[in-house]
Amino acid sequence: MNTPRVLFQFDTDDQPSTFDGVVAVDAGVDHLFRHGSVTPENVASLVHGAMFTRGAKALRSTAIFIGGTDVLAGEQLLSKVTSTFFGPVRVSVMLDSNGSNTTAAAAVVTAAQHCSLMNCRALVLAGTGPVGRRVARLLGRHGCDVRIGSRSPQRAEQAAAEISVGLKDSSIHGVSTAGDDALQAAMAGCQILIACGAAGVTLIEQTTLDTAADLKLLIDLNAVPPAGLEGVEPTDKGRRDARERICYGALGVGSLKMKIHRRAIEHLFACNDAILDAEAIYALGETLLG
Amino acid sequence: MNTPRVLFQFDTDDQPSTFDGVVAVDAGVDHLFRHGSVTPENVASLVHGAMFTRGAKALRSTAIFIGGTDVLAGEQLLSKVTSTFFGPVRVSVMLDSNGSNTTAAAAVVTAAQHCSLMNCRALVLAGTGPVGRRVARLLGRHGCDVRIGSRSPQRAEQAAAEISVGLKDSSIHGVSTAGDDALQAAMAGCQILIACGAAGVTLIEQTTLDTAADLKLLIDLNAVPPAGLEGVEPTDKGRRDARERICYGALGVGSLKMKIHRRAIEHLFACNDAILDAEAIYALGETLLG
Amino acid sequence: MNTPRVLFQFDTDDQPSTFDGVVAVDAGVDHLFRHGSVTPENVASLVHGAMFTRGAKALRSTAIFIGGTDVLAGEQLLSKVTSTFFGPVRVSVMLDSNGSNTTAAAAVVTAAQHCSLMNCRALVLAGTGPVGRRVARLLGRHGCDVRIGSRSPQRAEQAAAEISVGLKDSSIHGVSTAGDDALQAAMAGCQILIACGAAGVTLIEQTTLDTAADLKLLIDLNAVPPAGLEGVEPTDKGRRDARERICYGALGVGSLKMKIHRRAIEHLFACNDAILDAEAIYALGETLLG
Repeated sequence: MNTPRVLFQFDTDDQPSTFDGVVAVDAGVDHLFRHGSVTPENVASLVHGAMFTRGAKALRSTAIFIGGTDVLAGEQLLSKVTSTFFGPVRVSVMLDSNGSNTTAAAAVVTAAQHCSLMNCRALVLAGTGPVGRRVARLLGRHGCDVRIGSRSPQRAEQAAAEISVGLKDSSIHGVSTAGDDALQAAMAGCQILIACGAAGVTLIEQTTLDTAADLKLLIDLNAVPPAGLEGVEPTDKGRRDARERICYGALGVGSLKMKIHRRAIEHLFACNDAILDAEAIYALGETLLG
Repeated sequence: MNTPRVLFQFDTDDQPSTFDGVVAVDAGVDHLFRHGSVTPENVASLVHGAMFTRGAKALRSTAIFIGGTDVLAGEQLLSKVTSTFFGPVRVSVMLDSNGSNTTAAAAVVTAAQHCSLMNCRALVLAGTGPVGRRVARLLGRHGCDVRIGSRSPQRAEQAAAEISVGLKDSSIHGVSTAGDDALQAAMAGCQILIACGAAGVTLIEQTTLDTAADLKLLIDLNAVPPAGLEGVEPTDKGRRDARERICYGALGVGSLKMKIHRRAIEHLFACNDAILDAEAIYALGETLLG
Repeated sequence: MNTPRVLFQFDTDDQPSTFDGVVAVDAGVDHLFRHGSVTPENVASLVHGAMFTRGAKALRSTAIFIGGTDVLAGEQLLSKVTSTFFGPVRVSVMLDSNGSNTTAAAAVVTAAQHCSLMNCRALVLAGTGPVGRRVARLLGRHGCDVRIGSRSPQRAEQAAAEISVGLKDSSIHGVSTAGDDALQAAMAGCQILIACGAAGVTLIEQTTLDTAADLKLLIDLNAVPPAGLEGVEPTDKGRRDARERICYGALGVGSLKMKIHRRAIEHLFACNDAILDAEAIYALGETLLG
C-alpha cells in the first residue's frame, strides 16, 4: 500500500475554504485535514502532526496548504510553520491566501506569453495590495520595468521599496494614480497594464485608457462588475479590442490560475521541503505552457 | 481518473452531524467537507467553492447537503444556497435537517403501500412541526384528504393554509386535538393516523385510539418511549394489532428512511441542478419499492 | 463494495490533533470525521451517528478515537461514550489522549523485553500523572513491584491506592522523590527506572542516578531537552551507558509507540465492541514483538 497523500489545510478564516478543498482533492490528495481559525499561536502543534508521524521517506506524502481571505495573516502563518520545522524534519508548504499567489502567477505567466518582460514597462494598478505586490515583484524579477500604482504615492513608493528587497537589477517604482492626469502619466510608455483592485471597483475609465498609446496588453483581475479596467470583460481571454490591445479578464486568466493551483498541490508531494510562495508558484506556472 | 465526488455537509449546529456523514460515505461520496455553524451569513463563500472550482461537466461531482437539528434554520440555508447559484453555475443540493425530509418521505411511502392515498382520509398528529407539515403536504399532493392536528386549532389551520399553497385540488384542513373529544372527532373517517410529535410524548392513549372505527394504518415516528401512539412499538414494521390495524414504529420505517437518504445522496451526483426537498425526496423514495 | 472504514476522531481540544489523524489514515481508515471541542455534554448525539447508521454486520466498520492534550477530559469522554451505547448497538472505542496509552504501553513493552517483570522492582518518576499512572498499573499487573514517585508522598500514596483498585496480588506503593536522599531511597533495589515527567524538566541528575547500584534499565519519556534522566538522550534506543545500563529515550520508544498506535486503530475495525484503554493497548503492543 502506498502512503496516502495527506494535506493539512490551514485556513485563517473561521470556515476553511471549500474552494481550496476541491482543488486539493482534484490534484490527487487522498485525505484533507481541514482546519479553520488557524493562527501563529495554535499552529505549532498542528505542524508537529506532520513532522512526527511518518518516517523520512514518507514525509513527502504529508504537506501543508495555507489559505484564507487575509493574505497578511497567511504570510504570518507561513513564517510560523516554516520556523517550526528543523533539519530534515519538515514537509512541503504552499501559501495561497485569497488565491493571491496563483492569481499573480497566472497574470504574469499570461503577460509573458504576449510580451517579452525583459523589454517591457508595466503599470500595476492597486499595486500595494497582496496580489498587486506579488504581480509587481514577479514582473520585476523577470526584468520588467515596473510601476506600482496607488492613489497614495507614499504607499506606492513604500511598497516598491519593500518588494524590491533582494531583487538585483530590478526597476520597481511607485507612482500616483490619483486622478486622470496621474493615470496618464503612470501609463506613459507602458506596454502592460494589470489591475489588481478590489471587487467591483473601476480603477480606470475607457476614455483615460484610450489615451495610453503604448498599451498592448490589459489584464483585469477583478471578476465582479463593474470592471477594474473599463471595457475589459471578466470572460476576455486574449480578445483584441478596437485598438488591437489584447484583453484578459479574471475568468480569462482563471483556467490557467486553476491549473497552476492544482500543479502546485501536486508538486507539494514531489519532495518534503518545498516552500511554495509567489516565485516558486510562478515557476510551476511557466512549466504548464506548451 | 474520474472526478472525485465531493459533498459539502453544511450543518447549522456547532458540530456537524456524524449521522449524515456516515450515510454520505455509504452512498459513495469520496470526500466529505464537513462544516458546522453554517448560517445564511457565512454560506455564500462556501457555495462559491462548489461553483467555481470545476468545469461544466464536472459540476455534477460536487454537491451540497444541508443538515442540523433546526429544520427552520436549514430551510433558510437552502434558500440562501440556491439564490447564490446563477445560470448553469450550480450544483445539486439536498435538505434533510433533523431527518425531516427522509422521515416524512418514508412515512408517506409506507402509507401509500397500504392505502390508496387518493381515496383516504389521514390525520397527522403534531402536524404543525417540520416533519408533520412535510407529511401532510406529501399526503395532500397525492390526493389524500388531510387533517393537520394540533392542540391549538389556530396553529393547525394556519399550517394547513401555508402548506396548501401551490397545491391544486388538495384538501388539507386544521383540526383541534386538545382533549379526547376533539381527538375522536379528528379521527372520524380517517384510515391513516401518523404521529409526528416530540420524542417521548404520548399524543393519544390506547382507549381513545380504540374508539376510531375506520383506522387501518398507524404510524408513530417517535422512537423514544413512551410511544406517541400508545400501543405502537418503535420496532413495529407492518405488525397487525388486535384490531387488525397495521402498525409501524420509528424504527420500523427507519430502514426505508435510510435507503431513501442514501438514494437521495446518490441522486445528487446524477446531475448538477437537483434541489432535493420533501417532494423530490418522496419521489426518489417511491422508486425504491419493488 | 466493502463498507468504508469510518473513524470518528473526538478531540477535547479546539483543533483536533493532526498527529492522531495521520496515524489513523496510515492504519487504513477510509474516512476520518474530525471533531474538536468535544465534551461529555455534546458527545452523545455524535455517538448516535455511529450507532444508528449501519446494520449489525457493518457496525465494525465505524469506530471512535478519543484524543486531545487533556487526559482527564479524555477519560471523562470515554466514560460518556461507552455509557451511550446499549446492548449490541455499539462500536469500538480507543482512548489515547496526549498519547498516554500508547506511550505507556510502549514503555512497559520495552521494559518487558529487557527485564522479567515478575521478578523486578521499578520506580516510576512523576508517577502520579496520567502516563505515570498507566505505566505503574501496567507494570503492577504484570507482577512488578512498583514504586510511584512524587515530590509529594501523599499524592504518591493516593495514586498508588487508586491504581491498585482491582489488581490482585499487586504491589504498588507511593514514595517521596523530594531531594537526593529521598531519590536514593526510592531507587534502592530497583532494576527499572521510568521517567514520566513534564517536557524539559530534569527529574534526576547523573550523580544521583549513579548511586543506584541495581538499575539495569532507564527509560526517559521526555523528548524535550534537558533530559528527565540526566545522561539519557531522546534518541537512545537500547544504548548501554558507561555502567552497562540499557537506555531508552522518548524517540527510542517512539517507533514502537507508533506501531502500537497504528495496530490499535486497525484493531478497532476487527469487532464492534472493543474498548481500547491502557491494558488492551498494552496487550496489542505485546503481539507486535517477534
